Formats: sequence, C-alpha cells, structure tokens
Amino acid sequence: MTTLFASAGRKIPRVGKRRICFPITSRAYYGRSQLLIKKLHAHPDLELELMLGGSILLDKYSRHIADDIEAGGFVITASLFNVIEGGNHVAMAKTACLTALEFTNGLHAQDPDIVVICGDRFEQLAIAMAAAYLNKTIAHIEGGDVTGSIDESVRHAITKLAHLHFVTNTDAERRVLAMGEDPRYVFNTGSLDVELAASVETSIANVPVNSYGVGHTVDTTQPFLMVIQHPVTTEVDNRQHLETMLRAVGMLDLPAIWFWPNVDAGTGGMSERLRHFREQHEAASTRIRFITNVPADEFVALLKATACVVGNSSAGIKECSYLGTPVVNTGGRQQGRLHADNVVHVAYDADEIRRAVVAQVSHGRYAPSLIYYQPEASQAIVDVLASMPLYTQKRFHDNVSTSTVRIP
Amino acid sequence: MTTLFASAGRKIPRVGKRRICFPITSRAYYGRSQLLIKKLHAHPDLELELMLGGSILLDKYSRHIADDIEAGGFVITASLFNVIEGGNHVAMAKTACLTALEFTNGLHAQDPDIVVICGDRFEQLAIAMAAAYLNKTIAHIEGGDVTGSIDESVRHAITKLAHLHFVTNTDAERRVLAMGEDPRYVFNTGSLDVELAASVETSIANVPVNSYGVGHTVDTTQPFLMVIQHPVTTEVDNRQHLETMLRAVGMLDLPAIWFWPNVDAGTGGMSERLRHFREQHEAASTRIRFITNVPADEFVALLKATACVVGNSSAGIKECSYLGTPVVNTGGRQQGRLHADNVVHVAYDADEIRRAVVAQVSHGRYAPSLIYYQPEASQAIVDVLASMPLYTQKRFHDNVSTSTVRIP
Amino acid sequence: MTTLFASAGRKIPRVGKRRICFPITSRAYYGRSQLLIKKLHAHPDLELELMLGGSILLDKYSRHIADDIEAGGFVITASLFNVIEGGNHVAMAKTACLTALEFTNGLHAQDPDIVVICGDRFEQLAIAMAAAYLNKTIAHIEGGDVTGSIDESVRHAITKLAHLHFVTNTDAERRVLAMGEDPRYVFNTGSLDVELAASVETSIANVPVNSYGVGHTVDTTQPFLMVIQHPVTTEVDNRQHLETMLRAVGMLDLPAIWFWPNVDAGTGGMSERLRHFREQHEAASTRIRFITNVPADEFVALLKATACVVGNSSAGIKECSYLGTPVVNTGGRQQGRLHADNVVHVAYDADEIRRAVVAQVSHGRYAPSLIYYQPEASQAIVDVLASMPLYTQKRFHDNVSTSTVRIP
Amino acid sequence: MTTLFASAGRKIPRVGKRRICFPITSRAYYGRSQLLIKKLHAHPDLELELMLGGSILLDKYSRHIADDIEAGGFVITASLFNVIEGGNHVAMAKTACLTALEFTNGLHAQDPDIVVICGDRFEQLAIAMAAAYLNKTIAHIEGGDVTGSIDESVRHAITKLAHLHFVTNTDAERRVLAMGEDPRYVFNTGSLDVELAASVETSIANVPVNSYGVGHTVDTTQPFLMVIQHPVTTEVDNRQHLETMLRAVGMLDLPAIWFWPNVDAGTGGMSERLRHFREQHEAASTRIRFITNVPADEFVALLKATACVVGNSSAGIKECSYLGTPVVNTGGRQQGRLHADNVVHVAYDADEIRRAVVAQVSHGRYAPSLIYYQPEASQAIVDVLASMPLYTQKRFHDNVSTSTVRIP
Repeated sequence: MTTLFASAGRKIPRVGKRRICFPITSRAYYGRSQLLIKKLHAHPDLELELMLGGSILLDKYSRHIADDIEAGGFVITASLFNVIEGGNHVAMAKTACLTALEFTNGLHAQDPDIVVICGDRFEQLAIAMAAAYLNKTIAHIEGGDVTGSIDESVRHAITKLAHLHFVTNTDAERRVLAMGEDPRYVFNTGSLDVELAASVETSIANVPVNSYGVGHTVDTTQPFLMVIQHPVTTEVDNRQHLETMLRAVGMLDLPAIWFWPNVDAGTGGMSERLRHFREQHEAASTRIRFITNVPADEFVALLKATACVVGNSSAGIKECSYLGTPVVNTGGRQQGRLHADNVVHVAYDADEIRRAVVAQVSHGRYAPSLIYYQPEASQAIVDVLASMPLYTQKRFHDNVSTSTVRIP
Repeated sequence: MTTLFASAGRKIPRVGKRRICFPITSRAYYGRSQLLIKKLHAHPDLELELMLGGSILLDKYSRHIADDIEAGGFVITASLFNVIEGGNHVAMAKTACLTALEFTNGLHAQDPDIVVICGDRFEQLAIAMAAAYLNKTIAHIEGGDVTGSIDESVRHAITKLAHLHFVTNTDAERRVLAMGEDPRYVFNTGSLDVELAASVETSIANVPVNSYGVGHTVDTTQPFLMVIQHPVTTEVDNRQHLETMLRAVGMLDLPAIWFWPNVDAGTGGMSERLRHFREQHEAASTRIRFITNVPADEFVALLKATACVVGNSSAGIKECSYLGTPVVNTGGRQQGRLHADNVVHVAYDADEIRRAVVAQVSHGRYAPSLIYYQPEASQAIVDVLASMPLYTQKRFHDNVSTSTVRIP
Repeated sequence: MTTLFASAGRKIPRVGKRRICFPITSRAYYGRSQLLIKKLHAHPDLELELMLGGSILLDKYSRHIADDIEAGGFVITASLFNVIEGGNHVAMAKTACLTALEFTNGLHAQDPDIVVICGDRFEQLAIAMAAAYLNKTIAHIEGGDVTGSIDESVRHAITKLAHLHFVTNTDAERRVLAMGEDPRYVFNTGSLDVELAASVETSIANVPVNSYGVGHTVDTTQPFLMVIQHPVTTEVDNRQHLETMLRAVGMLDLPAIWFWPNVDAGTGGMSERLRHFREQHEAASTRIRFITNVPADEFVALLKATACVVGNSSAGIKECSYLGTPVVNTGGRQQGRLHADNVVHVAYDADEIRRAVVAQVSHGRYAPSLIYYQPEASQAIVDVLASMPLYTQKRFHDNVSTSTVRIP
Repeated sequence: MTTLFASAGRKIPRVGKRRICFPITSRAYYGRSQLLIKKLHAHPDLELELMLGGSILLDKYSRHIADDIEAGGFVITASLFNVIEGGNHVAMAKTACLTALEFTNGLHAQDPDIVVICGDRFEQLAIAMAAAYLNKTIAHIEGGDVTGSIDESVRHAITKLAHLHFVTNTDAERRVLAMGEDPRYVFNTGSLDVELAASVETSIANVPVNSYGVGHTVDTTQPFLMVIQHPVTTEVDNRQHLETMLRAVGMLDLPAIWFWPNVDAGTGGMSERLRHFREQHEAASTRIRFITNVPADEFVALLKATACVVGNSSAGIKECSYLGTPVVNTGGRQQGRLHADNVVHVAYDADEIRRAVVAQVSHGRYAPSLIYYQPEASQAIVDVLASMPLYTQKRFHDNVSTSTVRIP
C-alpha cells in the first residue's frame, strides 16, 4: 500500500507532438528495433528521445552505436554509465537498480508520454518500474512469451507494469490477456526480429565471415553449422553445457561458426574461457570459427545459408521459423516458447545433440512458418504509439471467466 | 534477454535451518505481520532475519519499532536509510531503486533461502526484483487483489516475480492462477489483518482516544465516525478529495476520529495541510479529532465500536468485513477489491458521502463475513515456508485453457 | 595511486564562451551568491549553467526558488532530488555520495570549463570531488577560514581539490597559501555576504516581522535581540545548548526574534522540538517570536536594527563586522574565525550569555570593520572566472620555506 | 555551512578494545599493508575489521585475496561490488561515490573508533569523506607527498579530513604541518613499502618469471630491465607515452620484464591494447615479457636484481631508494616526489629514455638511501593507533607564522 501526494498536475494532453522515450541498454535490442526507431523518428506527430545506458555504452562492438545514432539525427537525451562490474548476480541486481535510479532523473526531466520497454532484459524491468512510479504510460514489446532463465519472470513482471502490449504471436496474446490486461491495449503485431529478417537482402556471398573473430577458416559455400549458446542465469551448469556443446560439435564433420555470447556486465571471464577452451580442446575445435559479432543483415544471411543452427538462441525459434532453417535447440532457455516445425529440442547430451544435428542437416530447410511473422510489424507499433489514447491507472481485467481457472 | 554466468554454485540444500529474510519497510506492514513474524521466529526449523529500511526508520511513530524488535530477540541484519526526500513521484521512484540497491548487498551476504515480500508497496517490488536477480525464492503475501493506485500494478508485478503465493481470498486465488502461477504454490490462507482483528480483545473502554493527536474531544461511548483517507498516487485530485471529505463530515451530526495518513517519503507537507485545513474549516472541524497513529489493538477496538468507517482504507474492506462494521468507501483506491455487504461505494461528492453515511449509520452493524477470514492464517503461512520444497526457475503455467481467453 | 586511461581528448580551449557550472544545494548559498550569479549570467563571454540539488528543492521556503531562477532567464541544467531522509550522520554521508553520483552525470554531459563550489557544506565537497575526477577546473569561494563543526574539515578539503580560490580575508589567504596553493590563483576578494549586506537599502520600517513565523509580537521600533542558533554536527549537546540559550534569553528584558535553523535533511524533528520548547518554557518565551525565514534584504535590515545578535551564526561574524552590530557568539561553531571588535565569545552558560548580552546592548553599535569587506567582490570573482587561464593538474606549492614549519 | 542534529550520543570511550576499520579497495594497497594488517590483527587491545570493495573483488589476481584474508582469520565485515564499468573519468567519479555510499552503511553499523585510509586512490578519498561525516577519527597513511595525476589532489584532500597522519619522509611531514595539521598527530614512520622491501628474503633465483604473463623468455641471471608504466588520469597522451616507451625499450639491447598496469575500472581495454601492441611492434618486443602480477616478495627480488627500472612507478622512487636500484623515471606522475640519487628524470622522448637507461645501467647499483626508511614502520603505526587519545573536531593549526607565507 503506497500513499503519496501527487507532485505534478494532471497529465496535460500535449497540444503538439506526443513524446516517446526509448531506453536502449543493449546492442541486441538496438539491432532488432532499428526499423521501429527509424519510423518513430520519422513520424510527424511523434518526438522520439533515445536514452542509452547499460552495456551498449561499454562493449567494443557497441560503443560506436552511440556515434551512429547521433549521426542519424536521433536525439539522445542521456548516456549513462551504470553497469556495475562483477559479472555475477549481485552485480546484475545492483546494475538494474542503479540504471533505474539514473533513468528516473531523465524520465522525470524529459517527461515523455510513453516509455517503450523491449523484451525481457533485467535492467528493462527496473526502468519499467521507475517509469510506472513516475506515472508514465508504458509500452511493452514482446510480452507473453514463455522461456527459461530469469527472463521468464522479468518479461511477465514488465507486462503487469505496462499499458500497451505488442506481442509477437497468438499464444503470447492469450497469455497477456489471461494475466488480466485490457484487450483494447493488446496488439499482436508479429515479431520485429522476423520483420527485419524478412527484409534483409544481403547474400551469404557478401558476408566476410573469416574477417571476423578467431579460429579456423569456414567455407560458407559448403554446408556449415551455426552455434549460438547463451549462459542461463538460473542454471549453474553453464560451463558444463559449453563443454558438452563443444564435444558434440567436435564429433560432427561440418565446419561451424560459433557465436560467442556478449556477456552481460562485461566480464573478461568469457574471453578467458574461450581461450582456455580452445587450448584444451584443440582437436575438437579444428573446424570452428569463434565470432562475437557480425552486422545484423549479415547475421540473417548466415541464418539463411547455414545447414543447421545449434544452441539456445531465440533467433533459432523466431527468425528461423520464418526462414525455414533447421534448428537444434538445447536446454531450458527457450523451453515453452512457441516454435515451428523447424525446431528439435534436445537436452545437454553430446550424443543426443550430435544425432539431432545430423538428422536436421539431412532433412534440409523447412517451409517458412508465419507464426511470428506479420508484414509491417514496426509500422503497426508506430501507429498505435502515435494515436492510441493513453492511460496510466491499470486495473486487472477479468478476461477469463473465473470458473475456467482450475483451482486444485 | 539476459545472459550471465552464474557466480555461485548450485543452491545447496541447507543441512540445518531454512533461512527466511523478511524486509520490513513500513510500520503498517510490521503491524499486520506481527503474528507471522513471531511464529517464524519461534519455529525450530527456521532462522528469521529482519531487514529494516524505508519509512519504518523515519517517522516518529516507527522509530521505536527497531528498538522493540531488537528487544524481542529478533535478528535485524540491516537498518538502511534509503528514503529520498521530496514526497513526489521522482523521489518515490528513486527511493525504490536505492532501497533495492542497498538490500541487494544484504540479501547477497545473508543468503536467505526465502525472501518474504508483503503486499503492494512500491519499494517491496524493488526488493522483490533484486531478490529475483539474486536467484532467491520469493514468497508473496496478499497477491491477486484488485485495487486502484500504483499499488495495482505493483502487486501483480510482484506476483510474477514470486514463487510462493499467500492470497487472502478466492477471487485473488483465481487471478493469481490466471496469471500463470503454478497451483501447487498458491495458498489461500485468509488475511493476516483479519486474523489479527479477530484476535484482539482490547475494549473500546480502554482506548484513550483523546490522548492522541489534536482537535476536539470525542466521546467514544456515543456513536462516532472513523475517517481514513489516503492519497492515491495515480490521482491528482487528492487535495480536492480531502476538501470534499471534510465538507461531507462537517455536514454530519456525529463526532469523528480522522486518521491522518502517514505519508510516504516523510513530507512535512501533510501536517502543513492539516494545519491549514483546520484553520480554514474551523466550523466544519468542530467535532473532529485528528490522529495519525494508535496501537494496532486499539485501532481494531475502534473499528468494532465506530458507527461507520468513511474513506478509502483497506481496513474498511478487510477487517470490517469480518467485524461487520458499516463502511462508506470513497473513490477508486479500493475499486475492484472483493468486499462484503458492509461496504457502500460512493464517488467524491460531499452530499453523496453524507447520505451514504447516514444510511449506513441507521443500518447499524452487519453480520460478520468470512470472505477474508481463515483461522490460523499466520500458522498456515509458516507451515508452507518451513516445509515446502523450494524452486527458483519460474515458468508460466497455463491454468486457463486458451480457448476461454476472450481475444477480441 | 590511481591508474586510468583518459576517456576523452585533451580539453579543447573553447572558441566561444567559457562555460561555468554553478551547483546550488541550499537556499542560503543561493541567497548570498545572487549578485555573483547575476553577473556571471550577464557576462558576454560566459555561459552559466545552474544545477540544483539537495535541500534547495525541498524546504518550503526554497521550493519557489527554482521557479524564480527559471523566470530570471537562467539555465537550470539539472534538478536532482538526492536528499536522504533521516536527519542524522548516516543520512548526511549518503546524501553527499548520492548528490555527487548524480551531479557526475550532469557535469559530464554539460562539460563545463569551471565548476564553482561555495563555502563548506558537506555536499559541496562531494560535488567538488566528482568534478575533480572529471578533470574539471574548480573554483572555490570562501576557503581558508577557520571554524568548528565538520565544516572545518570540508572547507579545507575543498581547497585541496580546487584550482581557483576566492577568499574573503587576509588570514584565509595566508592559510590557503600555507596549504600549498599556487599564489597566482588565490584571490582575496572580500565576502559576498558582506557585499550584499553593504548593498541593501531596505529599512527596518519595511520589515513585516510579525507576519512571519509564530510566537509573540515584537516591536522593532524598540530595542530587540536576534537569536540565531545552529546545531553543530560534531557536538552532541545541541539540545542542551538550545535549552541554555532559551534560559539566557528568557532572563533578559528584551524582546527577541529567534531564527530557527533550516535543518538539513528536512527533519520534522526541529519543528517538533520548537513546539515542545514553547510548551515547556512558556514563561521564558513570552517575548520571543520564532521565525525560520525572511527575505535576504529584510534580514540585513534586521541586523542593522537589532540591539544585539546572539548565537553562532556566521552573519554575526561577517555581515555584523561591517554593519557594526554587537554580537554575542556562543560555543565552538565560529571558533577561530577572524572577527572584528563587535564580537564577544562566550561558552554555553546561561548566566554568561546574559551578562555578555547586557554588556553588548549597553555598549551599542560598533564602528564598521572592513576585515571582510571589499567593494565589488562579485565583480572581482567574475573577472577571474572569465579571463584566467585554466589548469587541471595541481601540484603542492611550497609557499612556506620548510625551515619555518615547526616540527616538534 | 552544515547544520544537523547529531543522531547519536556522545562517542562513548569503549571499555574494551579499540575498533579499527581498514577499507581495502585495491590489491596493491593490500600488498603493501600486509605487515601492518597482521600487527593490527594480533594486537591484544585492538579489534580489526576489514571492508573490501572496488577492484580488489574483481581482477583475476585479486579475487583470491578475499579467500586468503578470510583464511588468515581476519574479519571481513563487507564485500561490496561497486566498480562502475567504463574505464573513463565518469565511471571513476561514479565508482567513488557509489563506494562511499555503500561503505557508509558498513561504517555506521560497525561503528569503528578509527578508519584507516591509505595513500591517494580516488575511492579512498570518498570513503574518508563518508567516515568524516560519520564523525569517525580518520588515520591517513602516506600523506604529504607530492606527485602528478589526480592522486596529488586526492592525497592532500584526505589529509584535510584526517586526524592522525603517518607520513613516510620529512618533506611530507613539513607539508602536512604547513597544511595546518596538529603536530601532536603527525608521525613520520617511514614507508610501509620500504619496510616490506627491506624484510624480503626471496632470492631472484626463486622467481619463476617465465611462468607469469606472456611474451619472450627472460634470463634473470643476466642483466635485464623492468618497465612499469602507469597511465596518468590528468594526461591525455597515455597511449602515445606507451608507444614512446616501447620504442625506447625496443632500441635497447637488454631483455625486459614489462609490468602491465592493473587498470582501474577493470576495462578489457588494456589487454586489447597489449595484444595490439605486440602485433604492431613485433620486432620491438622480441626481448620483452609482459606480466601483470607477481607475488609481493618476488617483485622485490626482481627490483633487487634488475639492471634498471624504467617508467613512472612509485616503487622506483620508494623501494628502489632503499634497494639502490638505478631508476629512469618518466613524465609527470612522480614529479615533485622526494627521491634519492638513484633516480634520473626524463621526458617521454624515446631517445632520451634510451640514453638515460644506458647511463644508469653502466652506473650500476647505488648506495642505499634511508629517506623513506625507518625500521618498524608498521609497529610505529600500530602503537599510535592502539594508544593515541582520539578526537574528531579538527581545527587548522597555524604551524607557520603567518609572516613567512609569501603573499604575492
């Protein structure tokens, strides 16, 4: 129970443009939101403000993004260093709190009409909380999905703080409604990632894979694997899972491009481990190239060309559903997420992974699925943000007749 | 999407006692949790740690609580000053963030098995967030209710971060399940407030009302009103609502005990206003005594004795349902909350309020309702906390068959 | 020892205006800096940026200042709520840290050439520290004085972080030089407070004393006392000192205007105590009016008219030296500060205070002293800020031949 | 000017042991304080509490220290992650503020009698500030020296907050006195680093140099150089200075052990640069081994054996004065620091560096100097900390007759 005297007057409907604040805290989020950001910026009735914080200001692949953004004519109203070092849970929690503390000042000063929160990153929940306490209308992109990791909790908690919901599939839509959101404000627009994937024209011939990262040369005109393996915050076997994956890939006859995760909280730990790995498993890694970053369009070109994606990336579930790329999904990270026929789930067992990859490679590409796809996803979001009447007082909406809830 | 290497090993099942952390950030929460706290402390298999922060360390009625707690043999592992002054939304948001930042250190160091989060206060969500990022199991008391104010968002967001749910009524239970919580971990134990109300034996004859607060003497052997009016963070008419309420009460012939809220963020603003009020409305307030605090048991004795409770307090909805006290509930703060027949809802219209009070007074006391009551609520919670197998990875539980969600 | 790779390029001499940042964190500092701020704002070669934080955003006499400042055409680049409630040492320390943390973001973004730090308030040291770490040139006003309280440490620590020093008297100048500052950057400009006092033309006849505060009516055409008693952070007898002072003033036959301090960290504690005092000492306070705030010019008019100033305010030492007002200075707060003949020092002994006041009243006004006065203090500061070549790397300047330092 | 009501009672002289808090925020500080810490821990009248924060919890060479400390029976009362990533000035400033904010909670709770602050690191000033605001007695080790970088400002600002001063040489003693410190509390105990160096018995034959770091094998039975080059926060040419140094060392015929600095704020930037360097300057670095860390005793063994130390480390000035090792000191970092005959100062000019090294190598070892040495430095500090009467209210002590300060 919170009692407080409102400090500010009633939210005055702006006579001029509606002001949108978009907090960007990771490179991945910026990448997938590009189409949306450009359209928000170009819209005649909207004023877009970008706020940067978190890892986007830190890692060597991201630092140039701020320059790019400013060069693109966008307005950056804050660039806040607020990542607390440590690469562990306590640093993660404190980073979230410090991020929200600092963004509060910016959100208060800039006074946006809408704050756009993306996905399920831990610091985005903290920012959503601060925005809610400032009585801002919150728009959330990509709610309602089910996954593993702490992301699962974060995503749904953001939903319960948000006022406008842009989901990517019908399962997610039903869940957001079951959680009590008002149907008038829940929009299934499809996935921005998939929209971006569908729009990419870069061909694999133009991807200079071997100029990125370290390791062995991979011939992308021949069949090759892509491995994308993220650690999971709520699991403790991350290191062992990596070992298992490396063994599995080592047993296969195909060359592999291994995307090394951009770890949160900028630890040098990951690169230490990578180096250690390669030394310990030299034989196993003779056909592997390790890469941490390629441009977004080249990543899609690789997804289109690869024989199989292995690991636990959401790209295997979302982009690959549309692209028809075979996927072997490992472990609990994507567990429960809606997926198309292109995905086979396996546990962290080297032999099981190997067999599944062999089967997927021999199956070849799948027919495209539209479960995550709708044309013009970004435009649909922009239209709602520009024109939807706004509200701040939420109230649980009983979309489910109570008799259908199973009480044990 | 959050990637992180777990810093700590797997959660080792403690051979000894299960460790419970109970963050207390307001006097009201301490009051209503007394029975629970005592039972947790006394339980042979549990180790209870209290962490204090927020307003409980500040207001003059609360400061002695820390002393009382320590005198009671309880362990206080942290006393953190983290309320940012201002009494406005930006101070509220920053207070939440700073509270969570500081509690993170304590939660990390003390390494509890379970963190108990109560109700819907803004800083409790922040603490829940930090606890979730630290991979702690979170127990939430009083989820699933529907109300107004920012509390509505806060309560449900906590639900989506929590692992064990102690709800107070069947409506709340159905909502928590609809939101995707695992039925095995949702417990309808009834309300701690009502359990406390039911256990109070203090008689009105023993309440020295006129030794508290300021204003006129109230004869509690004769019919009298209780007014409890809280500000609402998402409303901007708080000041006008107070005026309306004062006019309404001024029109009635009954003496009134007006409970002045303990405003968050310790502003002197409230007392300024109170003084201004009394000066401006001297005639209207000739039968009113203004009080900010009485001991919990005396408060219940007053609820039992009053002719009618007027305002927007949850005590009118919860405790009074069991006590059968007539209630006139004003505005949106309790809107949507399950209530018994004893409650009449009115808007902020002085005449409407006056008529409703007259009608309720003439109706007299209601039959007790058990919608919020179950015997041994606190014991039921303790039993679960002491024995339930714990988990940290959440996953949305489809308790509602998707066909029953109404997609528009 | 601090090792760090510089993040930014060499400080580029701005082709255009020099940018001055002025962090204002208390009403008192804004009051005494008014002439300076106006001249900085009006200077054609300077760009002035005000940053607000601390108590200036909080207390009811200060809140309107932000509005006034903005109405005056000044640029406020940040308004930061960063006072942590508690009114004790731990809240003070944390407030300083949070203030500096938040000002860092603003100082980094605004990139001023000079940061102006005033006096000896605890949060000003924290801001100076942050500015130093950002490699800014720091100007300090009013260094080198000696006093009691934590202010004594704070003031000299700021000196050791600052690059340009504006002292108010020759004793202070010698101390700043002894501390190793470069003589080229130490300027004795006289006191801004005294310059302001010298410029005030408001007459006592125009001061509506009895419309301020609470208590008894004071006839300012007849002899009256002014009591200004501040708590001292490093003393623990503050409450007893207040009692002593009240007894002393109660023994005198003169009416008194008692300036109640604007306590830091916004505690309601002070007003509680005031109320308690007046109740307990009703007889003693029959000739006293309690006031917390009057406009700066009216304050000076009162200093000019009063028969004697009693207490521990710097106004007794500084403004009153120039105005010739008799002063009875109590306790250790101003101990060691340069003063003119108008000041008599006494301990906290009621009888001693009473006798000293009687003697001072019968002595009457003193001849003006110029120890703190120089005409055009503010202009002298502006001239240096506008034209002095800037530097950031400090180095201890051995102004004292080492043989003169007495090593025991 | 700071007004505040003291929250706590008068500092009660403890009947039992005096409590000493030692905040450790970097590995280097822990290393040089080892003898002192052990003696404090062993003293029958003292209770020692270590608080850890900053980089000591982060870098891979430091992380084990916490374990070692705890294994040694020491009490660690806090381990706080508070380094903000970025490796730039804004991250440094915010790290200092966050460190002090968090240490405040610990200092308040643990209530030490004395807080020991070491040297001149940026976060130690912040901790000293917090301790001063909490009214703690502060002991400062190694004040009064003159150097470059921000360290120069930090060191003297700490002096002005501290109550007990342990300086390492007579020049420093005179400066601390000139700055107004009370001669009764200024102690020239000599340097802890030099005491440690003097006590080391490890022989060069037992230093497994080539098992550390990366690069070429160095034969330590033959003449070799040691390069120790730190970045300087107030300089912007750090990168160029590194290049110059590498060119200079490349021109020499001697093998070199290059100690790569442990950069603050844990950037991966340094290792990136190291790798880049070695690639770009492969020819130049053929005789160089790059090392970031060796145990303290082995470091001293290397200093004793090397033909010449090149760079800007304080070890060249302090330890090497006693050891008689030839030193070529570069740039402004140690500028102004008292040094013995063993040190030659040069600018960042490759040819100048080369010639100076050749000259120093041909000169050979110097006679030991005792400018920084006193036997039993650590015991002298312990004796004062254990027995000196404590005080908190500071007051400028006019050790210099004002007539000797040169006012221009």
